[in-house]
Amino acid sequence: MKKSSKTITMPRGYLFSAAEAGLRTHGTGPDVALMYSTFPARVGALFTTNRVKAAPVLLSQKNLRDNKHTCQAILVNAGNANCSTGPQGMQTAKACVRRAADLLGLKRNQVLAASTGVIGVPLDAAKITGLLPSLVRRLHPEGYKGASKAILTTDRKTKVASRSLMVDGSRINILGFSKGAGMIYPRMATMLGFFFTDAAVEPRFLQSATRRMTDLSFHRISVDGDTSTNDSVFVMANGQAKNTPIRARTREAEKFLETLTELAQELAIRMVKDGEGAKKVAEIRVMGARTEAQAEAIARAIGLSPLVKTALAGADPNWGRILSAAGNAGVPLNPDRVDIYINRMLVFRAGAAAEFDEAAAVRQLRKKSVLIRVVIGKGSAQVRFWTCDFTEEYVRINAEYRT
Amino acid sequence: MKKSSKTITMPRGYLFSAAEAGLRTHGTGPDVALMYSTFPARVGALFTTNRVKAAPVLLSQKNLRDNKHTCQAILVNAGNANCSTGPQGMQTAKACVRRAADLLGLKRNQVLAASTGVIGVPLDAAKITGLLPSLVRRLHPEGYKGASKAILTTDRKTKVASRSLMVDGSRINILGFSKGAGMIYPRMATMLGFFFTDAAVEPRFLQSATRRMTDLSFHRISVDGDTSTNDSVFVMANGQAKNTPIRARTREAEKFLETLTELAQELAIRMVKDGEGAKKVAEIRVMGARTEAQAEAIARAIGLSPLVKTALAGADPNWGRILSAAGNAGVPLNPDRVDIYINRMLVFRAGAAAEFDEAAAVRQLRKKSVLIRVVIGKGSAQVRFWTCDFTEEYVRINAEYRT
Repeated sequence: MKKSSKTITMPRGYLFSAAEAGLRTHGTGPDVALMYSTFPARVGALFTTNRVKAAPVLLSQKNLRDNKHTCQAILVNAGNANCSTGPQGMQTAKACVRRAADLLGLKRNQVLAASTGVIGVPLDAAKITGLLPSLVRRLHPEGYKGASKAILTTDRKTKVASRSLMVDGSRINILGFSKGAGMIYPRMATMLGFFFTDAAVEPRFLQSATRRMTDLSFHRISVDGDTSTNDSVFVMANGQAKNTPIRARTREAEKFLETLTELAQELAIRMVKDGEGAKKVAEIRVMGARTEAQAEAIARAIGLSPLVKTALAGADPNWGRILSAAGNAGVPLNPDRVDIYINRMLVFRAGAAAEFDEAAAVRQLRKKSVLIRVVIGKGSAQVRFWTCDFTEEYVRINAEYRT
Repeated sequence: MKKSSKTITMPRGYLFSAAEAGLRTHGTGPDVALMYSTFPARVGALFTTNRVKAAPVLLSQKNLRDNKHTCQAILVNAGNANCSTGPQGMQTAKACVRRAADLLGLKRNQVLAASTGVIGVPLDAAKITGLLPSLVRRLHPEGYKGASKAILTTDRKTKVASRSLMVDGSRINILGFSKGAGMIYPRMATMLGFFFTDAAVEPRFLQSATRRMTDLSFHRISVDGDTSTNDSVFVMANGQAKNTPIRARTREAEKFLETLTELAQELAIRMVKDGEGAKKVAEIRVMGARTEAQAEAIARAIGLSPLVKTALAGADPNWGRILSAAGNAGVPLNPDRVDIYINRMLVFRAGAAAEFDEAAAVRQLRKKSVLIRVVIGKGSAQVRFWTCDFTEEYVRINAEYRT
């Protein structure tokens, strides 16, 4: 993956603002953000697969259906997930979205919603609606900086990145920011991802690109393996680059998806790095599989294994745990054909331990970033998955009694 | 569940012995055991579902097939899993079994094998075969005490229990012992369970009873969610109680299965209590489901969730995590119909927080043993699952560099 440039390239026609509603139980800073496209945008969106869905998730799904996957604004808050809050929760979500739509001169179903934070605590609509006039007034292209902060819960850092590419003679730009990884805090949950592009994109392709990009990035990382009630990814495409709308199965579609995926992977890896208690990131690369599904099942089993993750914390070149986790993936695997590498060191070959310099392997594993390659055969499918080490600090953070 | 009596009731016709082969990398004590039935016994057996299977697992499976699920002895060792040790691993397992069979005057396929411990380190057959003459000489009914010690790895305590029941006028006895829970140590893995009964049991029913008993006990517990390469459960039934062989779908079969399951659950709960770093046991009881499969998926999702397990460690009455884990089980769930209880306290009712005394809930959760009940509807299916809290100590133990 290319390194992200430090300079953020802004897509045309997007404005942002953020404010502090005092929703956080810990800490201060902005906790509400408004994201606005000056033109109606096509939206690709994916939501949590959890059977328990927060009110803003249900409302966004409804608005996208009603408005044929077009919208112009997203209202987001941190500090309160507005989940399992009874019928009142949906009324609150609707009240906030209605007020934002009125102030922006939009139809109500043109505004989407997202929340992250405490589950089961009523969210006071007035705390958000009272801020909306000021949020609308202060909308500005540079407002993404505040917005990317307002969505954070236990994250230590904001995650913002951008990419540009040429599509049939037009330069198009994509800005993305995200928070969280898995469900990483007692009551402050959720992975949220927001992407804004000025590209014109054919709506069906936008949705399939959103899904594929998510499958290859946010669905390929793990901090603790939980899926929150509020997970949401949005990709807004407002067409202000004036390119011919990108259609599926074209060279342009391929380039767009590749760039979008690269951007999402950069954010995803930063989310793993920022995982609670995490001190290092490991890329699990499973190669030589017959199908991507097989490779993914194995990569996921390795990336989720608490034993692999604690071995990473201890810089233990314990290929037995990696192999055993792979064997647990529920897909065919012949251990006699498996090779395992830690960075470039072969530690397991064709069913038995390889001779390797254990001290050197420990040094490799002490690095902040490690590549674990598992070659399972002669197939052509491969998959990348990112995980972090599992430290005592993770347990400490999550075991603390909520106050 | 009834409390186990402290007195162990011995089944007729079983002898045991144990010795120290020096296979352990940490600590001392017996690490090899021989278990012998003075008459050929029917055997119910279940092995790991991991695609990576240790040599003793493959050998036991072969011997059971070749010998129509009859055997007379089991040879077990701790300290070395004899897994991923190449073709030499199978030769070692065979050499040990062959020597035991010769000394006992049995055919080779009448001896089964089990191992637990380090993966990927060659096991020296001579260390075990050299002890076999003494092991055979010292076989004794009371030898189960040493044998139940010899199978331990990081377990802090032996787990032994027994039950008796009357079957058509004959008293039959069942002795069981086990080790481990999930895969709970860097290189010392595996759940092993051994059951010995003097009942006469029709072979097909014995196998189905072994499976059902395991499904309701060892498959319903979790320490860390990993499945080892060596997991094995054996139930030997040698018929020395002289009862009419127990057949499926009879009143006797029901009683036998119930007693066997109760015994296995007692051992399973002790394994959870003894889980690495564990300080308490929680029973997750999911009730009101339409099917057992639905209830089990939900109970398992809750019992495996790192967030639920860390909340248990912190005595945090965090029903949001329980509900969210339930929603992640991949089966239908309507949160508006869910009630959640901590012991007898209702903490979540029909889709929203119940009013409850939080301090009192914390006191309930501070106990060594907690019942979490999740009622998901009006169905008649229910399931029990046992898990432990997830503590910093677990991570510390598993992150330590192997020496």
